[in-house]
Amino acid sequence: MSQSPHAHAPERPLANGQTRIDFQTAPSRYRHWKLAVDGDVATLVMDVDERGGLFEGYDLKLNSYDLGVDIELADALERLRFEHPQVRVAVLRSGKPRVFCAGSNIRMLAGASHAHKVNFCKFTNETRNGIEDLSENSGVATICAINGAAAGGGYELALAADHIMLVDDGSSTVALPELPLLAVLPGTGGHTRVADKRKVRRDHADVFCTTEEGIKGKRAVEWRLVDEVVPGSKFDQTVAARAKEFAAKSRRDAQGPGITLGPLTRGFTASGVDYSLVSVAFDRASRIATIALRGPEAPPPASIDALMALGAEFWPLELARELDDAILNIRLNEFDVAAIVFKSAGDPAEVVAYEHFLDANKDHWLVHEIRNYWKRVLKRVDLTSRSLVTLIEPGSCFAGTLAELPFASDRSYMFLGAREGDNKPPATLILTDANFGPYPMSNGLTRLASRFLADPADLAAAQAEREKTIDAARAQELGLVTFTPDDIDWDDEVRVFLEERTSFSPDSLTGLEANLRFAGPETMESKIFARLSAWQNWIFQRPNAIGEEGALKRYGTGQKPVFDTRRV
Amino acid sequence: MSQSPHAHAPERPLANGQTRIDFQTAPSRYRHWKLAVDGDVATLVMDVDERGGLFEGYDLKLNSYDLGVDIELADALERLRFEHPQVRVAVLRSGKPRVFCAGSNIRMLAGASHAHKVNFCKFTNETRNGIEDLSENSGVATICAINGAAAGGGYELALAADHIMLVDDGSSTVALPELPLLAVLPGTGGHTRVADKRKVRRDHADVFCTTEEGIKGKRAVEWRLVDEVVPGSKFDQTVAARAKEFAAKSRRDAQGPGITLGPLTRGFTASGVDYSLVSVAFDRASRIATIALRGPEAPPPASIDALMALGAEFWPLELARELDDAILNIRLNEFDVAAIVFKSAGDPAEVVAYEHFLDANKDHWLVHEIRNYWKRVLKRVDLTSRSLVTLIEPGSCFAGTLAELPFASDRSYMFLGAREGDNKPPATLILTDANFGPYPMSNGLTRLASRFLADPADLAAAQAEREKTIDAARAQELGLVTFTPDDIDWDDEVRVFLEERTSFSPDSLTGLEANLRFAGPETMESKIFARLSAWQNWIFQRPNAIGEEGALKRYGTGQKPVFDTRRV
Repeated sequence: MSQSPHAHAPERPLANGQTRIDFQTAPSRYRHWKLAVDGDVATLVMDVDERGGLFEGYDLKLNSYDLGVDIELADALERLRFEHPQVRVAVLRSGKPRVFCAGSNIRMLAGASHAHKVNFCKFTNETRNGIEDLSENSGVATICAINGAAAGGGYELALAADHIMLVDDGSSTVALPELPLLAVLPGTGGHTRVADKRKVRRDHADVFCTTEEGIKGKRAVEWRLVDEVVPGSKFDQTVAARAKEFAAKSRRDAQGPGITLGPLTRGFTASGVDYSLVSVAFDRASRIATIALRGPEAPPPASIDALMALGAEFWPLELARELDDAILNIRLNEFDVAAIVFKSAGDPAEVVAYEHFLDANKDHWLVHEIRNYWKRVLKRVDLTSRSLVTLIEPGSCFAGTLAELPFASDRSYMFLGAREGDNKPPATLILTDANFGPYPMSNGLTRLASRFLADPADLAAAQAEREKTIDAARAQELGLVTFTPDDIDWDDEVRVFLEERTSFSPDSLTGLEANLRFAGPETMESKIFARLSAWQNWIFQRPNAIGEEGALKRYGTGQKPVFDTRRV
Repeated sequence: MSQSPHAHAPERPLANGQTRIDFQTAPSRYRHWKLAVDGDVATLVMDVDERGGLFEGYDLKLNSYDLGVDIELADALERLRFEHPQVRVAVLRSGKPRVFCAGSNIRMLAGASHAHKVNFCKFTNETRNGIEDLSENSGVATICAINGAAAGGGYELALAADHIMLVDDGSSTVALPELPLLAVLPGTGGHTRVADKRKVRRDHADVFCTTEEGIKGKRAVEWRLVDEVVPGSKFDQTVAARAKEFAAKSRRDAQGPGITLGPLTRGFTASGVDYSLVSVAFDRASRIATIALRGPEAPPPASIDALMALGAEFWPLELARELDDAILNIRLNEFDVAAIVFKSAGDPAEVVAYEHFLDANKDHWLVHEIRNYWKRVLKRVDLTSRSLVTLIEPGSCFAGTLAELPFASDRSYMFLGAREGDNKPPATLILTDANFGPYPMSNGLTRLASRFLADPADLAAAQAEREKTIDAARAQELGLVTFTPDDIDWDDEVRVFLEERTSFSPDSLTGLEANLRFAGPETMESKIFARLSAWQNWIFQRPNAIGEEGALKRYGTGQKPVFDTRRV
């Protein structure tokens, strides 16, 4: 189907002449956050630089944020995991007097494209989920110390913490003013966490979410919106005491030093991105991005000491960081990419050797963090609103962790037999323990368990094949791949599929994939992405929000919005 | 906030000079379905009258349907429950050769308002859920016998059945062609039932849902899309045999005769609707509908024989039918109503007497069906996209089943103390066993269990108050109501709340309520309404579907749609 000449309205210009949003940063370059570590307590101070907006055209007043601010927060969380293994509690607070955080910047939202808004919210959601993952799976508890107004995304940030403290100064409130003020929904899990994490009674939640000025003091505690209110004179000492209490309860028992997450080796060209282990190639005419992953070139390290010496250059960690960056770059900078094609090249036996090394050392803090990192990267893949396809070709190395990519894909094609004139080894899959536990999806199940929901015997049959080399015919029998064309059909079949796929409406594909990828149980996380995000996307698109007379357009103009009053 | 003069584009004109959509019908008036009962087997034949569309401007070709067709199906299901208690299996089939059902009518969809489309889909979803409820809770198994193409909503109708049979004639297929053909999603639970009920493997589901021509024959069985394929020559006899098998397994053991669901006593005026036991008053300037329910005027019948003699005039059944009709009338004919206010008048002790009668006879088929009917009506209330508020005033009778209404509401206000110059008895709530089991919400929990998710002790405390008269102060202590203003504050507090509520954006209220009403576990049903519906609403609103160059507008014109290719 043809493309509209009007389809590509330019995105809002980035500030400082940037041409793409960069997800790589480091504490020394932060403009909005300060990360301080003191023994087992880390403090993350949000002190947003008003003039440091990612795009032109707005100031980040009152600790409001845009994607650039959140990229720093996400980076800081990774530093806590990898660089500061001795940290057992993280305190989130504001560096500004009398304001905690005003949430995401309204002028930024009003001027951003719908695609940016939706993907911005997705990233901030992943970061909030990452805060909860940090506590649940790395043992770093989080305390949010609210010293002033925490509104909208500001309160949603607090909701991600284990413990919320609010100063009792007669004016500081928590609030979700999105509905009364802006005619949209909180974009970062607010309603879901209020209902399902904090378990606020639904009529209290209704009052809270429709009260622009928010709730303060004792009522905030009684309604379960915060865990405690503390007089201003005792606030700092009480926060410090809570930090010590939570640190004492943590089960994180790693000792320093950590490893350094150095800058990625990365080069952007007109047609792609080249990392050490990952290559991204854009076929812009066809709207396809191919992500190729390279297997290890050396055997795994011989010891934990050798692992620590490798640090961020350890193959599984380097690959995960590069894949994460590649996915985020496509999500936020390449809206026109319709489909992502995963390929790999390498020796599957070497990949399996790394899985064995990780399994043998799974109780070491760094190995634990690397597995957890892969879990989050694979979830990022699951949640990426592009059609995902894995091509398992001769010479590929989809084994263990890498074999999760075909299971994360909407479809997979596996090459049956040999390619004429090609001496690469035939396409194989190898399953390991990595495919049966450490990488749950948002629904709480592994990808194979989700795949074989209909019959647990299919899952057991796959499990029985662990460590075996599975060829295309056997993979088809086991239900591990979608189609297995041979040399005669391969090129045509893959081409026709991709041509057809890219001809479909992008919106309906987003909805289709959101509904088919996550069968089975729901979790708070899956509710946020599947339910809340869908409603929010809908509302963000409606004239009552973004029309000329809508609430977002009229915010701050002194004019009241005009609504189409029909309830749907 | 002001209302836009452009906000009220007229809805498409109804056919035959009708001024409202009527949800009341009866088999003798069906234009699209035939209901035949033979012993314990009922056959529901879909034979849509092309010229019988609900609105002007389209023909219902190829057994395609609109809301009018589905209203008859929903009515037929109620007849099976109440009028034919001996039926143990229902066979759904088509009266047309070589076509089962083409799904919802595209021309109808293309011309309908967004509000109609969304509420049409909601009703059809409730009807499909009703088919599953008929099997699960009334013991009437359903068999779908597909003798030709079952596309889109046609296949979704089949998905609601317990057993899907497809004729194996080389051409008959099942299909969900919405995405490739129309750039929207299936609107009646298709993706959710494919993923979660049929548990189709996700890559198979991906292929199926993007293949316009559908899947037929053996592959349809292998991919779990249908339960069996049967040669055309043996189709009728095999369907009959399956019907006998399913009937034999049914646990429905009622014997006829049933009761007759006669026409409702109902009068429409410019400002409301008057039923026997329910009054609806529209305050159109304020965009508020008040639904007042009347308690029983006589004690419950003395025996089952007396109950059977009353039939549809038995107070709980008559009230449920009238409330259901009142809600549906607001949903589809009164889009401008922002809030529904529930009130009641009567003797709470009489209501409790009816609950005792129902409890004492709960094993009788009719009592069982009446409780089930209330369950569905209360779910209909939960799922109504209008703000819901219950006013518990002096002289009201919110006891037992009626006490579910405040718990189904977004907020409740209970009058504290007496009203000056009013000799009505003070406002009370009475809980009975009806509030602790028979009326689960879509999430599988009772309304009180959902309300008290944070602390099961609160639920236990409420349970300990069963059969007691609870005044406003005690109701507030128990957490059963939101606010308890006294005579001085009542009028102002209620007025201010309603004024504020109706000033908010209708879309954001829809999203808010969808997210706050259903805390706790998810079910297939809650997934359909919360997740699938949200995505679908979003997609239905996007230019890629409804824009001038969008797929719905261009369908059937010979011109291809033009898409904004950005993935969001």
